Amino acid sequence: MVVIDPKLDLVIERDVDIPSKLIWEAWTKPEHLKHWFVPKPWQLSDCEIDLRPGGIFRTVMCSPEGEEFPGVGCYLEIVEGLRLSWTNCMEPGFRPVPAFGEGDFPWTGIITIEPTEKGAKYTAIARHASEDAWKKHYEMGFLDGWGTCFDQLVEYMRGR
Amino acid sequence: MVVIDPKLDLVIERDVDIPSKLIWEAWTKPEHLKHWFVPKPWQLSDCEIDLRPGGIFRTVMCSPEGEEFPGVGCYLEIVEGLRLSWTNCMEPGFRPVPAFGEGDFPWTGIITIEPTEKGAKYTAIARHASEDAWKKHYEMGFLDGWGTCFDQLVEYMRGR
Repeated sequence: MVVIDPKLDLVIERDVDIPSKLIWEAWTKPEHLKHWFVPKPWQLSDCEIDLRPGGIFRTVMCSPEGEEFPGVGCYLEIVEGLRLSWTNCMEPGFRPVPAFGEGDFPWTGIITIEPTEKGAKYTAIARHASEDAWKKHYEMGFLDGWGTCFDQLVEYMRGR
Repeated sequence: MVVIDPKLDLVIERDVDIPSKLIWEAWTKPEHLKHWFVPKPWQLSDCEIDLRPGGIFRTVMCSPEGEEFPGVGCYLEIVEGLRLSWTNCMEPGFRPVPAFGEGDFPWTGIITIEPTEKGAKYTAIARHASEDAWKKHYEMGFLDGWGTCFDQLVEYMRGR
């Protein structure tokens, strides 16, 4: 169980009617992430996944104008089919990152997936170090953005 | 296998004639850590271990004059008997820490233990974000300090 601190954690929860296994696959295979990971018309132009503790989770988001936004994270914990954690405060191999630029901040992502009678309960958590970082992420539109992306995930994976 | 970057990682290696299992126990049970984790005459006055990814690794070092130095880390990866990783750049639950004080810096500790014919090969790695942090840790006497502590570990566990 993941304990939530509402002052420091942003959370979205969804109950959906697709099998939990499809949500896991959508989050762990680059060929799937390209179809849902960023809100359209943005695109995910590159994605690298080394699915093990300390492995790389690298993405490149691309704006409709073609501007690229690369990001590198490090997987923390992988509980097959149920829970996936990664952070941007470490590089692969659990190496701490040197510093964060203006406007950027460290955070950890935790996805939990619980099988239910009708499909799955999905929870996405963004965990922050401070209320200031929480606020920045909130104002960047985390809740809408991640909600939209999850809708894209469900629509894409349902067809598979 | 852990890939070393000599500019960013501090490493000590030892071949010893005690069973690898004893080294693992020494690192994972508070009642053992109290006997070896800090160079005497310093003491470990408190220790808390929640041995799971995201669990707490909390220590309080105490100088001969009675001054206490608390530290909190978060376990990253636990491969029973073989590899143990934790970091001070996260609090328990994989929450990034807000900031580091003057003179402090983020780092990750990785212990690997390999059974050998005569006992075990022990490797302790301190992984840093920058050459500056590497230098600070080096100048704090990491190599001597961790070497001394490991000698204490071997001496203590050999008697068990």
